[in-house]
Amino acid sequence: MHERIATDIRRRIGSGELAVGDAVPSESQLCAQWSASRGPVRQALATLRAEGLIGGGRGKPPMVRRQALSQPFESFLSFSAWVSALGQTPGQRTLEVARRPATQDMVDALHLEDGEPVVQLLRLRLIDDKPAMIERTTFVDSVGRSLFDFDCDSGSIYAHLQSLGHDMTVARHQIDAVAADETDAELLGVPVGSPLLRERRRASSVAGEPIEYSDDRYRPDIVSFTIENSQQTNTSLMRRWAAS
Amino acid sequence: MHERIATDIRRRIGSGELAVGDAVPSESQLCAQWSASRGPVRQALATLRAEGLIGGGRGKPPMVRRQALSQPFESFLSFSAWVSALGQTPGQRTLEVARRPATQDMVDALHLEDGEPVVQLLRLRLIDDKPAMIERTTFVDSVGRSLFDFDCDSGSIYAHLQSLGHDMTVARHQIDAVAADETDAELLGVPVGSPLLRERRRASSVAGEPIEYSDDRYRPDIVSFTIENSQQTNTSLMRRWAAS
Repeated sequence: MHERIATDIRRRIGSGELAVGDAVPSESQLCAQWSASRGPVRQALATLRAEGLIGGGRGKPPMVRRQALSQPFESFLSFSAWVSALGQTPGQRTLEVARRPATQDMVDALHLEDGEPVVQLLRLRLIDDKPAMIERTTFVDSVGRSLFDFDCDSGSIYAHLQSLGHDMTVARHQIDAVAADETDAELLGVPVGSPLLRERRRASSVAGEPIEYSDDRYRPDIVSFTIENSQQTNTSLMRRWAAS
Repeated sequence: MHERIATDIRRRIGSGELAVGDAVPSESQLCAQWSASRGPVRQALATLRAEGLIGGGRGKPPMVRRQALSQPFESFLSFSAWVSALGQTPGQRTLEVARRPATQDMVDALHLEDGEPVVQLLRLRLIDDKPAMIERTTFVDSVGRSLFDFDCDSGSIYAHLQSLGHDMTVARHQIDAVAADETDAELLGVPVGSPLLRERRRASSVAGEPIEYSDDRYRPDIVSFTIENSQQTNTSLMRRWAAS
């Protein structure tokens, strides 16, 4: 029992549901939630305290001290895996899968030859049936062509590509804000012009070859990003300046 | 000379001016920029290649392969240090420094007692005299009171606090998008309602005690954030879901 309680709290920290500085549910709340006695609840909290994930104890209410080893890389790339880890239901509505010659910005982003074909996907992503994000993803042709044999409404494309041996091991994320255009507004159910959180991402293979470029737009009232860094960990979070 | 060229490119990678996947200036461009011969330019590129910062060579154009050891933690906290590292001029216009009782959200964010005083700052930040960001920062009183003896228009508050021994060693950043309110719009020179990139940050001492909480709003056409992660590095970049 104490292991199940500890695992659940670890998951909630790992998913971001409980953030650093948040209070951990009290002993009595955990007892009620798990129909458990004080013994296993205290043991679970002691385990997490020993791992350094939570602080408190000796009269102080327990509080999240640091992130669980951080969200696994896969679950950051895969919306489906992330939503499942939250204990919610991921969903998707595919609006378009198309093969077409790469535009100049995709030639640059994916290091292609002029006119090389790419596979482009437009999908609305849902959390518990509520629109949360729109993804506009471009795959290099050798990878993307496998999507024509796949039902993009059936689940995680990332998991599908992995099963075919297409591993993405490095990603670069650029994060900013944009005004919702008409497509965004209609699909996400927000007014045209309202602020969206945008993540543009390039993911590459272990050999350093770009595989996908995506423009993902989130409803900021539903999803935000958190990053923790310190003088020790040297996180690669950077501001980027667009000289104008 | 080759050391100066390498250092300059390292700085440009470190500041985010050159991002992963970007082309490094060609040998001829570098020769022209530095009025240098091919020798030192090639030596500089070879040094960076040996460090793994750039790829290419043997006929392929050099390209940024990974971030310089990443932006130092300090320069992410300090807007002034970051802008200076870009080779631009940071600026600020302080609109308010006030001492007042903490509101409930600051009591929660900074782990204060009800009614404890805090010091709050409203500053417009500039890059080369152009408005780029508005910061609304709340300091715990023991740290913030030192700002009344400091000219907040003279430069980096972070450097000032460091010189007084107030070190911030851990930070948690939550990133989303918001519509510009009237204050934002007037100071940043954008229409009311236009999208801004928001970073809310809590920075803590090495002992884990919160020191400041800030709500920083950036013009997204001028500043964005980039993050690089991989299966190896396990960056603590997380999505956060606001259940509604």
